[in-house]
Amino acid sequence: MEESEWIDESTVSPHVKEAKYAVRGELVLRAMEIEKKLLANPEAFPFDKVVYCNIGNPHQLGQKPLTFPRQVLALLACPELIKNERLGFLCDVVERAQKYLDKIPGGIGAYSNSQGLEIVRHEVAAFLEQRDGYPSHIDNIFLTNGASAAVVLMVSLMLKDKHDALMIPIPQYPLYSASIALQGGTVAGYYLDESSGWSCSSNALQDAYNESVRNGARPRGIVVMNPGNPTGQVFSVEELEAILRFANKNRLVVFADEVYQTNIYSSSFVSFRKVLLDIQTCKRELLDQQLITLHSVSKGFTGECGLRGGFMELIGFDESVKLQVYKLLSIMLCSNLVGQVAVGLMVNPPRQGSPSYQLYEKERSSLISSLKRRAEKIVSHLNELDGVRCSKVSGALYTFPSITLPEKAVKKAESIGIAPDAFYCMELLNNCGIVCVPGSGFGQVDGTFHFRTTILPAEEDLDSVLEAISTFHKNFMSIYR
Amino acid sequence: MEESEWIDESTVSPHVKEAKYAVRGELVLRAMEIEKKLLANPEAFPFDKVVYCNIGNPHQLGQKPLTFPRQVLALLACPELIKNERLGFLCDVVERAQKYLDKIPGGIGAYSNSQGLEIVRHEVAAFLEQRDGYPSHIDNIFLTNGASAAVVLMVSLMLKDKHDALMIPIPQYPLYSASIALQGGTVAGYYLDESSGWSCSSNALQDAYNESVRNGARPRGIVVMNPGNPTGQVFSVEELEAILRFANKNRLVVFADEVYQTNIYSSSFVSFRKVLLDIQTCKRELLDQQLITLHSVSKGFTGECGLRGGFMELIGFDESVKLQVYKLLSIMLCSNLVGQVAVGLMVNPPRQGSPSYQLYEKERSSLISSLKRRAEKIVSHLNELDGVRCSKVSGALYTFPSITLPEKAVKKAESIGIAPDAFYCMELLNNCGIVCVPGSGFGQVDGTFHFRTTILPAEEDLDSVLEAISTFHKNFMSIYR
Repeated sequence: MEESEWIDESTVSPHVKEAKYAVRGELVLRAMEIEKKLLANPEAFPFDKVVYCNIGNPHQLGQKPLTFPRQVLALLACPELIKNERLGFLCDVVERAQKYLDKIPGGIGAYSNSQGLEIVRHEVAAFLEQRDGYPSHIDNIFLTNGASAAVVLMVSLMLKDKHDALMIPIPQYPLYSASIALQGGTVAGYYLDESSGWSCSSNALQDAYNESVRNGARPRGIVVMNPGNPTGQVFSVEELEAILRFANKNRLVVFADEVYQTNIYSSSFVSFRKVLLDIQTCKRELLDQQLITLHSVSKGFTGECGLRGGFMELIGFDESVKLQVYKLLSIMLCSNLVGQVAVGLMVNPPRQGSPSYQLYEKERSSLISSLKRRAEKIVSHLNELDGVRCSKVSGALYTFPSITLPEKAVKKAESIGIAPDAFYCMELLNNCGIVCVPGSGFGQVDGTFHFRTTILPAEEDLDSVLEAISTFHKNFMSIYR
Repeated sequence: MEESEWIDESTVSPHVKEAKYAVRGELVLRAMEIEKKLLANPEAFPFDKVVYCNIGNPHQLGQKPLTFPRQVLALLACPELIKNERLGFLCDVVERAQKYLDKIPGGIGAYSNSQGLEIVRHEVAAFLEQRDGYPSHIDNIFLTNGASAAVVLMVSLMLKDKHDALMIPIPQYPLYSASIALQGGTVAGYYLDESSGWSCSSNALQDAYNESVRNGARPRGIVVMNPGNPTGQVFSVEELEAILRFANKNRLVVFADEVYQTNIYSSSFVSFRKVLLDIQTCKRELLDQQLITLHSVSKGFTGECGLRGGFMELIGFDESVKLQVYKLLSIMLCSNLVGQVAVGLMVNPPRQGSPSYQLYEKERSSLISSLKRRAEKIVSHLNELDGVRCSKVSGALYTFPSITLPEKAVKKAESIGIAPDAFYCMELLNNCGIVCVPGSGFGQVDGTFHFRTTILPAEEDLDSVLEAISTFHKNFMSIYR
């Protein structure tokens, strides 16, 4: 046996090396470097700050947290405050905090059940029932450190080796391809159709499935992002039903990634869960189907990314699989309790008639209208740029415009060994301090180029961000045309 | 290609199935079931509550959180409170909260740098320098959801397949064997010597190494728990140096799991980091060595398990490996921000002379003395039981007594298909409502039996818990002798 070696680039696990995550990749590392240089020398760059449009991180760009959930969390952090009458919190805030404290043995400083706090799982079950009209059971609900942790966990459970594939949309959110790579599994990408607003056709699904099988990798599941990230489409009931029937025919577990379900700016959101249960109940079809429903406090109008709270509901899985999921969660003991409680506060907000309702509702609706305005403004602005085409943003927090890059720019990128759209984004960063993510990080039709930007810059900053992008784009095109 | 199948026990990943985590295994599921039955019918069992001694979860058993860190966290959850002068918080609480808010863009609701907040990493670096006398650098520090997440991550990076092994102590904390199983790697267990208070001999290390190599699995690293879990020993500088030299000779990355470093009841704690840096600096030896230092807010006197805060420092790893670590963390974006800040508050407590110092110090010292009293009481009590032998608890939160089980009990256990010590623990649970973990969950010399109990029951409950164990043990022995 050869001698042991230290851990270096040549000896780390190939699965780890294979995994990529462009949203926080090279561009972000460069952005952080620039930020440091700007601190030391504010004149070092032709801009005075770095604007992170690479990631759906609303609070970082100035979005304020909602009052009600944060007040409850403050009381859980410091329960002695509950008795402080000079605090000025409304009574439903105090009542909710007291209810959690009564039901959480040891408070937020104790490990919970590895599956998550029972009281929060009850709140999630009630939310799912109210949303879809079908009951849910706390035994099927698992609380996780954001939805990402649930995805990584379920992928690790499902994929054994390169002969197991997971179907993911192209473009996709790269958490999925990274999770697949970490298991040594295979990506089976199905293309969304940009020309029809990133719709999903049955042909595209079947093509991707067949190709994966031809290559020796059997798809075990299919990821559906609705609303789409980075693509912003919201699927209709008919589209969801078509996907579901395709999945069912091929026994594919559906990952319904619905973390943007309250970020809806036109059309309306229907959950995969409702579509499935409608078929099983109203249409009385005996449709065996495994469904993983995902949701998170990071997006929506809460935007509580840093709290790392999320949940999944498992439908159609037997006890033995749920026990495996429980065991995997138990190895790291439990997800963080503040994130768990934040899930409860998201799915069970103040109700009409309760003292905190009015403020909560005002905060919620003003945020959603602002996001809608920003989405529309960004899309129309980008569509005015030469060679840029941007689909409507019906939901989620991103636009994903295509850019027609001049031959000379493509050559330049190749000469320095990076993807052409990564070159475009790097130039945008170096010239304007704006961080976007190249389309190559999400996947795209060969020969096309895109970038993703969030719609999150604050309204008062948005004009200057868009102006900077325009100026940069015109310059870039004039140099490389 | 065969047809796809739904996910069930026969199709889940074999690595997942292989992983075991007894600390929250079958016994805990049974305990939760009993708790539910007790709620419905308080007469259903010969005890009125379930006492969880299976896990180091101090707050669950009544330990109060420290005042200073929780007040700061409340202000971060609800920054509007900072301006509330009627709150009654001391000025250093408010100052610390303001300092975090100034340095955390977007507050605790925003994703941080995937490596963790810079301000907290600076606090960790200062702590390590003060503790060991050698500087640390924030680029080497990574904040994680508890130390467990750091372990799982580093194991996934280091082990490729069954030909890669990780040396772990026997008995071990089962996070390690589970993490190895999830990667399809191999466990190379080295035995601690119970007869000398769970010491670690060079022979035992060499034997384990040789055996693993003989079996075709090359050890890549070695886990050292100090203070030991479940064994409670604290290694001397000489023992640590011997382990280090063994690791170095065989190019083994050292996992220094030191999450119990402030749970010291006799002898004193010296970090692996200090031992290594002393050799490299004072002894001027050119010792190349890779070291992973682990710490957590879950243990010590903070006991903040539910916040999921921890850190690791990497020593001797090159940039390319640190970039891989960063990438793995970035896939799940970042660890939870409350846990990150809790790490900062743990390593940077109120200093002498600051307003919160006195209360903090009082809370700290009374907790540590109480744990010391409980450790001594439990050990001496258990040693009085027939067939039970319990080593001194010098550190950490557990005792791991050996029990000589009568032949008849062993046969009975075999007849129902469980390990003899699991049978003992199950009977203890069913008769007294006390949850311990069988030695078979940690590993032990073949033919010996143990169980692990925490030293955490509150002092006012401890007598009754010990009394219940005694009565049960006597009964058990009289039935099965």
